[in-house]
Amino acid sequence: MQLPPIILASKSPRRQELLRLMNIDFRVVLKDVDESFPDGLSPEEVALYIAEKKAQAFDESITDEAVITADTIVVLDDQIIGKPESQQHAIEMLQQLSGRKHQVITAVCIFHKHKWNKFFDVSEVLFRPLKDKEIKFYVEKYNPLDKAGSYGIQEWIGLIGIVRIDGSYTNVVGLPTEKVYQELLKLA
Amino acid sequence: MQLPPIILASKSPRRQELLRLMNIDFRVVLKDVDESFPDGLSPEEVALYIAEKKAQAFDESITDEAVITADTIVVLDDQIIGKPESQQHAIEMLQQLSGRKHQVITAVCIFHKHKWNKFFDVSEVLFRPLKDKEIKFYVEKYNPLDKAGSYGIQEWIGLIGIVRIDGSYTNVVGLPTEKVYQELLKLA
Repeated sequence: MQLPPIILASKSPRRQELLRLMNIDFRVVLKDVDESFPDGLSPEEVALYIAEKKAQAFDESITDEAVITADTIVVLDDQIIGKPESQQHAIEMLQQLSGRKHQVITAVCIFHKHKWNKFFDVSEVLFRPLKDKEIKFYVEKYNPLDKAGSYGIQEWIGLIGIVRIDGSYTNVVGLPTEKVYQELLKLA
Repeated sequence: MQLPPIILASKSPRRQELLRLMNIDFRVVLKDVDESFPDGLSPEEVALYIAEKKAQAFDESITDEAVITADTIVVLDDQIIGKPESQQHAIEMLQQLSGRKHQVITAVCIFHKHKWNKFFDVSEVLFRPLKDKEIKFYVEKYNPLDKAGSYGIQEWIGLIGIVRIDGSYTNVVGLPTEKVYQELLKLA
């Protein structure tokens, strides 16, 4: 397919790898974006709001390129679990997720020719009850401070602790690739 | 955990990678095994039968080591879809899977100290309707002749074509890692 030049506005090596596996040529351009959001939004609305905000940072400077931005959040009992602020905080987050189902929402915004195309996907993830020593080992060795919910599904804790997912796997990794592909096709 | 020395009896680079991501030290030992099976078995029984047969090839030669074998099959409408015999066959298999749900069963056998521990996991996978040109591109470029069902979930066709999975992701890749970890713990 003949796509416009693609910019991925994400420093996540996982998103970059997913786009590479999709055979999509892209370059990475990063902009500083304030990720705060107004009160009263649902979790989906928060993810969409932040993904769009990341895309709006490109408004002035883009001509024929398409910009892909994304925001991934973890939701437990309708509450957003953000990124951990410390290793102790990461341990507490994983203790909360242990033995329970949570949702992972990734919102994506594709900005092209002054249009914003926003969408999201939701996946459910079930962790078995995790032992404290498993959580501590993971947090100390993998230091998941850059990860919503304090875990990477493709890392040790995901492999030994996740019983099942219901929904898109790549959405949990950080980019709902099947949906992104369909939307990019519309630009071809 | 202090495990016995582990042998992985699989040439699949995907299984080897999963075991590495689990932080498990292992060496690969391959034996030729006839993968035929008797009539009248259910798909689960077939996968378990072949996984055990692969483990039995080690019966005489193992002392304190634990041997892990696995067999992954793809099931559509209760029928086993094997590995494709040609690129044309791979194309036909993917046309069958297109737009439908199928099951992936991976059976595992862990052989240790004259005991065989067998178990399996089932995941459901949904492909969106695939275009013929997508299927042909994938088969020609990725040549999935070593893969049950003619696809790798971690490859291009998985990323752009799979809408959702219900169950273990690593089970679809080729090893139900969470279950394998729990069973290995019993040997520690």
